[in-house]
Amino acid sequence: MSDKTNPGHFFEDFRLGQRLVHATPRTVTEADVGLYIALTGSRFPLHCSDTFAGACGLEAAPLDDLLVFHIAFGKSVPDVSLNAVANLGYADGRFGAPVYPGDTLTTVSEVIGLKPSSGGATGVVWVRSHCVNQVDEPVVSWVRWVLVEKRDPDSLAPESVVPELPEAVPFAELQVPAGFEGAGYDCLLAGSPHLWEDYAVGERIDHRDAMTLEEAEHQLATRLYQNTARVHFDQLAAAGNRFGRRIVYGGHVISLARALSFNGLANACRIVAINGGRHVGPTFAGHTISAWSEVLDKGALPGRDDLGALRLRTVATKDRPCADFPDRAADGKPDPAVVLDLDYTVLMPRRG
Amino acid sequence: MSDKTNPGHFFEDFRLGQRLVHATPRTVTEADVGLYIALTGSRFPLHCSDTFAGACGLEAAPLDDLLVFHIAFGKSVPDVSLNAVANLGYADGRFGAPVYPGDTLTTVSEVIGLKPSSGGATGVVWVRSHCVNQVDEPVVSWVRWVLVEKRDPDSLAPESVVPELPEAVPFAELQVPAGFEGAGYDCLLAGSPHLWEDYAVGERIDHRDAMTLEEAEHQLATRLYQNTARVHFDQLAAAGNRFGRRIVYGGHVISLARALSFNGLANACRIVAINGGRHVGPTFAGHTISAWSEVLDKGALPGRDDLGALRLRTVATKDRPCADFPDRAADGKPDPAVVLDLDYTVLMPRRG
Amino acid sequence: MSDKTNPGHFFEDFRLGQRLVHATPRTVTEADVGLYIALTGSRFPLHCSDTFAGACGLEAAPLDDLLVFHIAFGKSVPDVSLNAVANLGYADGRFGAPVYPGDTLTTVSEVIGLKPSSGGATGVVWVRSHCVNQVDEPVVSWVRWVLVEKRDPDSLAPESVVPELPEAVPFAELQVPAGFEGAGYDCLLAGSPHLWEDYAVGERIDHRDAMTLEEAEHQLATRLYQNTARVHFDQLAAAGNRFGRRIVYGGHVISLARALSFNGLANACRIVAINGGRHVGPTFAGHTISAWSEVLDKGALPGRDDLGALRLRTVATKDRPCADFPDRAADGKPDPAVVLDLDYTVLMPRRG
Repeated sequence: MSDKTNPGHFFEDFRLGQRLVHATPRTVTEADVGLYIALTGSRFPLHCSDTFAGACGLEAAPLDDLLVFHIAFGKSVPDVSLNAVANLGYADGRFGAPVYPGDTLTTVSEVIGLKPSSGGATGVVWVRSHCVNQVDEPVVSWVRWVLVEKRDPDSLAPESVVPELPEAVPFAELQVPAGFEGAGYDCLLAGSPHLWEDYAVGERIDHRDAMTLEEAEHQLATRLYQNTARVHFDQLAAAGNRFGRRIVYGGHVISLARALSFNGLANACRIVAINGGRHVGPTFAGHTISAWSEVLDKGALPGRDDLGALRLRTVATKDRPCADFPDRAADGKPDPAVVLDLDYTVLMPRRG
Repeated sequence: MSDKTNPGHFFEDFRLGQRLVHATPRTVTEADVGLYIALTGSRFPLHCSDTFAGACGLEAAPLDDLLVFHIAFGKSVPDVSLNAVANLGYADGRFGAPVYPGDTLTTVSEVIGLKPSSGGATGVVWVRSHCVNQVDEPVVSWVRWVLVEKRDPDSLAPESVVPELPEAVPFAELQVPAGFEGAGYDCLLAGSPHLWEDYAVGERIDHRDAMTLEEAEHQLATRLYQNTARVHFDQLAAAGNRFGRRIVYGGHVISLARALSFNGLANACRIVAINGGRHVGPTFAGHTISAWSEVLDKGALPGRDDLGALRLRTVATKDRPCADFPDRAADGKPDPAVVLDLDYTVLMPRRG
Repeated sequence: MSDKTNPGHFFEDFRLGQRLVHATPRTVTEADVGLYIALTGSRFPLHCSDTFAGACGLEAAPLDDLLVFHIAFGKSVPDVSLNAVANLGYADGRFGAPVYPGDTLTTVSEVIGLKPSSGGATGVVWVRSHCVNQVDEPVVSWVRWVLVEKRDPDSLAPESVVPELPEAVPFAELQVPAGFEGAGYDCLLAGSPHLWEDYAVGERIDHRDAMTLEEAEHQLATRLYQNTARVHFDQLAAAGNRFGRRIVYGGHVISLARALSFNGLANACRIVAINGGRHVGPTFAGHTISAWSEVLDKGALPGRDDLGALRLRTVATKDRPCADFPDRAADGKPDPAVVLDLDYTVLMPRRG
């Protein structure tokens, strides 16, 4: 094998405190915005209309928050998870400055936890990743942990260090984009009269619509994010795995669930935190994705009566409508149709 | 079911004169232009080249007219046709100001006709939709009528009001974009020497080329237009319908037929009216679309010797080449391969 | 058949010295850049980041060189190869001015060779094509030759004229984009420490990753380039050909191979010449493309110590990993899995 090819990092290659500067810096453009609409059908007006965003005090329509996350995340794949057996979870995701077409995004990660598996052939790696724009403003940061193969199962294992992670980003630490004013938000154009006051903790919403996955679509999305995990692209190799299929990038399912959630959560205008998330099961081309959401918590924001925060849980299923909110069974095991369980926080305009 | 989810309007929900403001305002961009080329293969130079458009007196290449129509139309779907059993027809479509990247489009519809079906379970709704740009200039308006389900088959039916619709937009009422001059139109770069004078009423043209539909492609197109009709996206639900398949958005077939018509109608540089149109049959992924056109009428434009109008009929088929112009049989029934019968009017440069 | 439809040129229609001005001039945009990333997964930083390109002395990120080539090439198809039986080869491809979003590309071809086939029913046509931007700067030129059908097998054949073509574009004639400075190139952000000095003639690199072809993806790519060859789009017609399948545009395979080559050749930052290339075998949706490369030659550039040239050969295969560098057998015949054999020259930063 050539010494010039990147085989990805194995568990032994990670060191606590290690800093990984990820390739490739990326100038995001209106093309990302348009492709994201074409790939997900998202209709949140703040991300679709410069005039709508302008009325809310922003300079233009910022990129969809999840689009930013996927591009930021994709950069970390070649250095963090090329040899990952599994993506175990996300936590403490925080969105900062809005991202506009023309901004250039770069991601750096730091290793914050390591834990050899008991079997010896793998280990868990925790990284905190930071994505910044061209003037070094943080646009999104998050923690994720992955189960990574060892190069040599007999190599010496490092001491276990497991980071403490918050259950959720506190409402008081959420960042409202500079200049953003809920007063300018037009519910009529947004397509829904339901504002922050109208949602109750514990309320559940079936998003009704559904979307069938296609190979070409998830591949286009995942390549757009320059995510290089081969399980998404290489059917020849996939034919030999336990599924026999290319696995859809979990982030694509997150984006579909968020786009579907427009029907019921149209005014959830900005994602400000990803508190946690699990890809409960794999999805493949041909699966039809549905989604429902639950209001986990709601809170005011310090000093603001124009916007409030909702902590949401959005559950996505495959080949299973969500009218009856498929969830965990009595034994705590998720319904076999559930593929995603995402805990995140959004901003929503208040009546003021 | 949550009260926050939009179930779509049923027949009882429509009132004569009712005004529906549609979500989501949309800033169109170069991404829409590029995706439209990728999805249709359209080659009309006015929509592909800023220098070509500039030579014709326009500030830049305007968006393809059908791209504008589909985006404008898509907005009306959640409020008008989410519970439609069938899209029955279009009429009186009029194109106004050209749309450029950066413009923001909003659509409003007015209910102009209602007719309960004899069976009682459905009714026909006519709406006139108006799409405007960010400075409130009309960019396209049209009438369409749809067969919509009743929520309650026993509900009281309104009095029938059926609007009168013109057979075609009169040539004298067609709008030429401000500043547009046929004199600057370069036939050599456009790829065809055939101008307005060269087309005869009754002339038929087989467009020769053909395009096979893919699920990923029609879904990408339909989501780009933020058209939410679930029949296009949800295979799980479609498996239970009479076709067992996702139905391709009829507008995608219109766009493919128009793109194919470049071979024979390259200088039909701008659509100025959609006089009428019927989706004669459904299409599915795997169908190969071919098209032929007939010149229905031609006319001069008041005060202009640089441009003329052609009223065209373009017929699209599935899995059937068009060298012999498949059409209605002697009994008036369309050839079973015909899927689209579109009556529209274009501008074409004159020799002057 | 209508006289308004372009049936494509047959062998008899070509004359030595004939000049073909191709439709449609095309303003390239950020949409082309974004779609190209989504279609290929390319990660070369010079084409992805305005800040990275700016640090190297360019005004912005130029379009990927192959994207420019495909758009330029697509224009020539309706006039050169609509009736081609086979694309026989490329030679003497030279890249000139970088192309930026907003530039408008036009292609003109000249017939430089003709050779009737011995059988009589076909002939080989050589054309040199030139693509220029809106201020008439050459952006790319190349020679290709195609086997074209005769309209009438008994028509008189012209005298054979076979052009002399260079084996490779000499290093001294390669064009470095104005202002481009290797000194500003950041290897850390590019994701690879390997520079021009580190590559040895004869070195071979397996690019490891692989990409499975989908109908929707190759069709989107080929339509984006406005390449109208019906073999890529028309399954109804393809069902009757010897493969029974739509054939993937060879240029899409070139782009995938180049994108895959990032893993091992990340700093091959600009293609400056296409010396030769053969589509050794057809590819279809479902095939998984892998690639490996060999350094054929390396050379300094006159007066520059910041950049060097590498002449590369990239071989792509279908359904066959490249860890053992599949190539020609002892009898000179290519491995049956090989689909592409491309000889090209890149710029790469030097240590200086």
